[in-house]
Amino acid sequence: MASHGFWSLGGDNTGASTGSQSPSTPLLNVGEVEKPADPAAKQPPQTEAAGTCGCNKSCNCTKGAVVFSDLYSTDLLPAMDGDTKTMTFLQEVVDILLAYIVESFDRETKVIDFHYPNELLQMNNWELQDEPATLDDILISSHPRYFNQLSTGLDMVGLAADWLTSTANTNMFTYEVAPVFVLLEYVSLKKMREIIGWPDGRGDGIFSPGGAISNMYAMLLARFKMFPEVKEKGMSSVPRLVAFTSEHIYYLKILFGGVRPLLGTAVESSNLDPTPAATDDAYIMMHQYIKILLNAGLYNIPPPLMNSQTTQEATKYFSFRSGKMIPADLERRILEAKQKGAWGGSLLMSRRHRANSVTWNPHKMMSVPLQCSALLVREEGLMQNCNQMHACYLFQQDKHYDLSYDTGDKALQCGRHVDIFKLWLMWRAKGTIGFEAQIDKCLELSEYLYNKIKDREGYEMVFDGKPQHTNVCFWYLPPGIRYMEDKEERKKHLHKVAPVIKARMMEYGTTMVSYQPQGDKVNFFRMVISNPAATFEDIDFLIEEIERLGQDL
Amino acid sequence: MASHGFWSLGGDNTGASTGSQSPSTPLLNVGEVEKPADPAAKQPPQTEAAGTCGCNKSCNCTKGAVVFSDLYSTDLLPAMDGDTKTMTFLQEVVDILLAYIVESFDRETKVIDFHYPNELLQMNNWELQDEPATLDDILISSHPRYFNQLSTGLDMVGLAADWLTSTANTNMFTYEVAPVFVLLEYVSLKKMREIIGWPDGRGDGIFSPGGAISNMYAMLLARFKMFPEVKEKGMSSVPRLVAFTSEHIYYLKILFGGVRPLLGTAVESSNLDPTPAATDDAYIMMHQYIKILLNAGLYNIPPPLMNSQTTQEATKYFSFRSGKMIPADLERRILEAKQKGAWGGSLLMSRRHRANSVTWNPHKMMSVPLQCSALLVREEGLMQNCNQMHACYLFQQDKHYDLSYDTGDKALQCGRHVDIFKLWLMWRAKGTIGFEAQIDKCLELSEYLYNKIKDREGYEMVFDGKPQHTNVCFWYLPPGIRYMEDKEERKKHLHKVAPVIKARMMEYGTTMVSYQPQGDKVNFFRMVISNPAATFEDIDFLIEEIERLGQDL
Repeated sequence: MASHGFWSLGGDNTGASTGSQSPSTPLLNVGEVEKPADPAAKQPPQTEAAGTCGCNKSCNCTKGAVVFSDLYSTDLLPAMDGDTKTMTFLQEVVDILLAYIVESFDRETKVIDFHYPNELLQMNNWELQDEPATLDDILISSHPRYFNQLSTGLDMVGLAADWLTSTANTNMFTYEVAPVFVLLEYVSLKKMREIIGWPDGRGDGIFSPGGAISNMYAMLLARFKMFPEVKEKGMSSVPRLVAFTSEHIYYLKILFGGVRPLLGTAVESSNLDPTPAATDDAYIMMHQYIKILLNAGLYNIPPPLMNSQTTQEATKYFSFRSGKMIPADLERRILEAKQKGAWGGSLLMSRRHRANSVTWNPHKMMSVPLQCSALLVREEGLMQNCNQMHACYLFQQDKHYDLSYDTGDKALQCGRHVDIFKLWLMWRAKGTIGFEAQIDKCLELSEYLYNKIKDREGYEMVFDGKPQHTNVCFWYLPPGIRYMEDKEERKKHLHKVAPVIKARMMEYGTTMVSYQPQGDKVNFFRMVISNPAATFEDIDFLIEEIERLGQDL
Repeated sequence: MASHGFWSLGGDNTGASTGSQSPSTPLLNVGEVEKPADPAAKQPPQTEAAGTCGCNKSCNCTKGAVVFSDLYSTDLLPAMDGDTKTMTFLQEVVDILLAYIVESFDRETKVIDFHYPNELLQMNNWELQDEPATLDDILISSHPRYFNQLSTGLDMVGLAADWLTSTANTNMFTYEVAPVFVLLEYVSLKKMREIIGWPDGRGDGIFSPGGAISNMYAMLLARFKMFPEVKEKGMSSVPRLVAFTSEHIYYLKILFGGVRPLLGTAVESSNLDPTPAATDDAYIMMHQYIKILLNAGLYNIPPPLMNSQTTQEATKYFSFRSGKMIPADLERRILEAKQKGAWGGSLLMSRRHRANSVTWNPHKMMSVPLQCSALLVREEGLMQNCNQMHACYLFQQDKHYDLSYDTGDKALQCGRHVDIFKLWLMWRAKGTIGFEAQIDKCLELSEYLYNKIKDREGYEMVFDGKPQHTNVCFWYLPPGIRYMEDKEERKKHLHKVAPVIKARMMEYGTTMVSYQPQGDKVNFFRMVISNPAATFEDIDFLIEEIERLGQDL
């Protein structure tokens, strides 16, 4: 059976295991790994130097002469005379990775197995020891197939950029330690602000380790903007604050994914072409509402910032229609809440519901390798004012260059991983039009899926109308429950269908889609199409597979 | 002049640019980059297929036949027939990286230039365009020397692991998307807890994007532990809280680096061999005090969590001696503060000042490539209770395996970058004894530096006695001010010495050390030795260079 591993689509990376082996096949064991470039198998006797370099031709590379079973990491650079050993070791790793990449893009040959956690732990000796292991052991441990993981959706230029980033081995702390990366971040953030539509791309921004962190930074900024005294005097110095959010974003932590687009006010998603997933629409909306809430003086960051169920309580002040927030109703509810006298704060309600900050996650729909998330902020200087602590020993003010390029004072982190180069190089390689085409393709595929199942027997759509983004939410009803008369009984059965089909998919390793319940809606499939390598045939296969695995339920 | 680029030591990665060119040499321009593997130069006419594959031998690799100036990223996988082009493109990138790595470890040949931000921006066209660039352009943009950055201190096994991590292209969201990485994290966290000394390595933990984030997670946990109602009802539901910290950690954000070890109570640094830098001692201490403060019900997380000067106010309740906190005095001060009736909370003061959580940053002294930071927590279940929001659509409870391996509910982030494999593979390669040796070497080097300058003419130590970690803090007094009688005048001059010497070092690109003032102490050099590739000769060179560049000041 051909596998369709191009579904690393389902949900928020919850769907990556695919394959075609039977569930009982044991995981490849250390030492028995069937891999394209087995270092042990390759090692010739020391006398046989030709024909072994990996290029499959007769040549005199030194590669064949290095025996990794006799070597340790201390033999590599910076060891004296470590050059050749290091080059050979790293080339060996690369050979394994290259073969794996080609293999993982081949729909016919890729295989993967699901194994239970205890099973995996028992089958492998992963304990950390006092004694060093040989480089041979290290190479065997480095085989990606050993990780039981497909690299679907991996962008090749993004991968190359990530390899370079690792090799450059620096961080985004100050201009002097990463001058080019700092400037590429500067250039890219400006471009992103132009796309958002802020005049001349003015504003500020920073890359952070992910959407949750970007979002938290935005919350901190918004709070500081309205209540600057919070920085020195803490939460006890400000009035009680409340966050208003969509009930579908029922905790801020999971603002992304799964939530149908929450558009409905002044920031149109079209402003964000080429734009990230639905997920980011949600972020945008949240930031937009922060503006509203701040203006109302009613905005809260319940601690821990992203984790409070306080936000759930707050949602009772809203009305929703198909997951969209209704601004007029929002205003009315805020006024109501204020009139109840429960919270203080000044009323500066603005009619112009423009976002003051945007979280944009290129590691989602734009397929930049994880992690790549940016927070973009409209007001210049706010980030610095909110976060600067005049830590003179880290950020010397008597340095000899323009310190505005030192980003270390703009956020909570000091050192930051270099996440910009992947995005910049991919953008350079594709051009803006390339990203647009990639996103258009995903939208086209999701429309294809929608059209294919909307009238198909056994399927029901969870929401009315065409999907507004690349999420397609649907139920599959096996024949046995399709015509059940008892609605409650039918619902109870239906709730179990998606989990069983998904578990079977994982065990057979053929394809993947995620599922979830939502409010009073029982478990439904939620297909998020974000992998530009997917095809119409993959969609067809998904439908066939659901029916094949679910028909007896 | 030989360069000594092995000083990526100074401070918190503030010292990485070295080189031996004159400051006026222009940066290598795009298209004129003098690089070991210039893709353009290498490309032969299509008819000349042999002798061009990069192995410098006559062979028939397809590599020579690929002309990158005609290709775009859309020609790579997942494009049809993209295998060969992709392999060749990635191999080209690797050839560039490998040559760069060898070059960067060669003390004689490495060169680097400092350029001012505007200068760099003007010299290069880094704007993001609508149109795609050719792969030729992408390869030229991918040259690490172009980044004006040395990869000193880069661990080769760590690098290989990072390349693999990029290729595996997954995240730490749930067991099913990254089974092996999730289990390696599980195994490694347990090992780390054993080293900390918690019984049988019991407890919990998670890898986060860095020390500041780990620390924030710890704060959130500690607050939740004492005031669980904060999760649902927010800060207004708990008494006013105050954090007590060292005055040298004058804002929590910069808990790491530069601060002399703050040991002095029950958690000994020896518990943490192989342990990270001074920095982490500071973390440990902070967590330890959180325990104390929580017990006193006096503990605060001023918002934004890591950035509040409230902590500065709080330090007035402490006495310090050589940067060490005095537990007995701490208790007295807390009791005093309580008796003033300024804050509420129950008094549960414990005499056993054991840490409840530890932030451990393997990306510091253990030289794991950035980012790699772990938060370790003594109490099982606390992380889940604090952060879990029952987001059923992300973390389905009806999945078919042991859900305790799903880490997505243990912290604020949902998806997390895979940071574990670098640490695990390096630990495997070195063994615990290898890490110990590496840290011992850094300690030995810092003692060598201390012994060399403590009685040398023109040097003064900033603190009394031998350094407790690998930080060595000292002043260099040029002959002109060495015997100044006016103490104030001397101090004023001395304050300017370190910045000028450092600026000259950057311009000449020879070596690097960071400086800082602290309290009433004027700018002094702060040498943090964390690069195991450094040698005694590098220390000698540093001293000579300071004297050469500073003698006229």
